Parts: sequence; structure tokens; C-alpha cells
Amino acid sequence: MSDSLYYDDLTIGQTFMSRAQLVERDRIVAFAQEFDPQPQHLNEEAARDSMFGELVASGWHTAGITMRLQLESLMGRFPGGTLGAQVNKLAWLRPVRPGDLLRAEAEILELRVSKSRPDRGLVTMRTTTLNQRNEEVQVMTATIMTPRRPQS
Amino acid sequence: MSDSLYYDDLTIGQTFMSRAQLVERDRIVAFAQEFDPQPQHLNEEAARDSMFGELVASGWHTAGITMRLQLESLMGRFPGGTLGAQVNKLAWLRPVRPGDLLRAEAEILELRVSKSRPDRGLVTMRTTTLNQRNEEVQVMTATIMTPRRPQS
Repeated sequence: MSDSLYYDDLTIGQTFMSRAQLVERDRIVAFAQEFDPQPQHLNEEAARDSMFGELVASGWHTAGITMRLQLESLMGRFPGGTLGAQVNKLAWLRPVRPGDLLRAEAEILELRVSKSRPDRGLVTMRTTTLNQRNEEVQVMTATIMTPRRPQS
Repeated sequence: MSDSLYYDDLTIGQTFMSRAQLVERDRIVAFAQEFDPQPQHLNEEAARDSMFGELVASGWHTAGITMRLQLESLMGRFPGGTLGAQVNKLAWLRPVRPGDLLRAEAEILELRVSKSRPDRGLVTMRTTTLNQRNEEVQVMTATIMTPRRPQS
């Protein structure tokens, strides 16, 4: 796990790139069976007759993988964790296929101290999920709340 | 599965309520292990020391359950499926705990025919996820694209 980070250590424009995660065919199908059983996500045969023409991951699966990746590279490094989050935009730009390697890059867009709780900071960031060809497959903008560095 | 629905059958203000889905403790933990391994989602002991003080579902798990529910009540009823989606807002309002019963209600906010593809319609809807006490646990606004009824 990487070093811990406080709100006070962040600067606007700073970026955090995650490791790469392999998207496995069986995880695509298992996710779809539980949460998004549309033909394009369930199996190759059903997907062939869908408008995608091939098996692709649910967008919510891509969102979950992105959460995992940016938890490791950024949000999981906040001592005390994140105290709430709101997504302002979440869009899926390209299909994610079995065997794809995804990375997530978070860029800090805005930083402000909470007015009601000055011991907390609000971090707005854009997280771009990229495949092994550096193509954007998902883009998300979100604001999270996290504790500030304790005053000594 | 409910009857099929075309874009042309929808009206602004129309609502679609899903069935209820039980949130099981073991699914909360399994989801967290794969996508969101924060202490409040992983097990009761780790959760006790987190700011939540108890085991709660990942917001992304709630989003997945919501997808499943509104696929059954609305989106899965579109012949030809949905051809793309964008989330404009996604916020988690209250914790989701093991044993909670979630329902999702979608309300049609806006309807417009695609300018570039007049055989497709764009549907903007707000989906509210409620627990067994009718409390809002998640709210989402999204726009999806779906085929229009074929002209005879």
C-alpha cells in the first residue's frame, strides 16, 4: 500500500495513476448475472445477437473496477477514509472486453475546506479509466469528503 | 418479465417501481472484497472501528442492486435494449445494512428524440433507491438511449 495522504497534501492538477487490472471473462459474466443481466454481458452467444455483437462488461462493473483501482492509488491512502461521496458525472465511452487491462487516473480538480466542519476537506476529482491502448473507456467526476491533517 | 415498452410509450412524470431485493451480508462482503475493500464494508470487526461503526454496503454495490431492479421494472423492457447511458448525478444518502430490503423507483423527467438518429429516443430519469422504512438511500439521475417503435 502507498503512503498515507491528507487533504492538505493535495494540489489542484495533481494526478494519481493506478496499477493495471485484467478484466476476466468469468468476472464479467458473474457480475452481469448478479447486477446487469443484459444479453451483451451474459455470454458470447446472447451477446452476438445484441447491438454490441460481442461480450462486453457492464458499465457498473467498470465502475467497480475503477473504484478498486483508485482506492489503492488515492482514496484508500486517506487516514480515516472518505466520509461520503457524490458522483457528478459518470459516462461510458467505449466497450470493455474480456482480456482488457484497465488503469484509472484521478486528477484533482478542486479543493475546499468544509464550512460546517473545518476539520474536513472536499476533494473534487476527475477519474479517467483507460484500457491497454490508452483509450478512455469511462470518465467520472466526483466529490469526496476526507479528514484534514490533525493540528498539532 | 413485464410487458415490453418503447420510448414512444413513455410520458413525463411516469414512475416505475421495482420489486424489493434483500441485501445479504455475505454479498456485501464479497462485493467489497472485489471492488471496495474499505474497513466499513469488509467485516463487522473492521467496520466497528470505522466512522460508520457497523458493516454497511459499498455505494457501488447499492448502485449495482439498483441497476438490477430497474432493469426488471423499466430498462430491460425496451426491445433492443439501451444503446448507451450517462449518469448525471449519483449520491448516497444513507447507509445500507445487511438485511435491508431495497426497491428502486424510476421517474421519467425528460424525453427527446435524437437529432442525429430519429429512430432513437433519449430518456432522462431520476431513480430513487428506498429501504424498507421508505428512506432514500441513493438517488441517481441518468439519460439512456433506446430505439423508438418501428414505423409500420
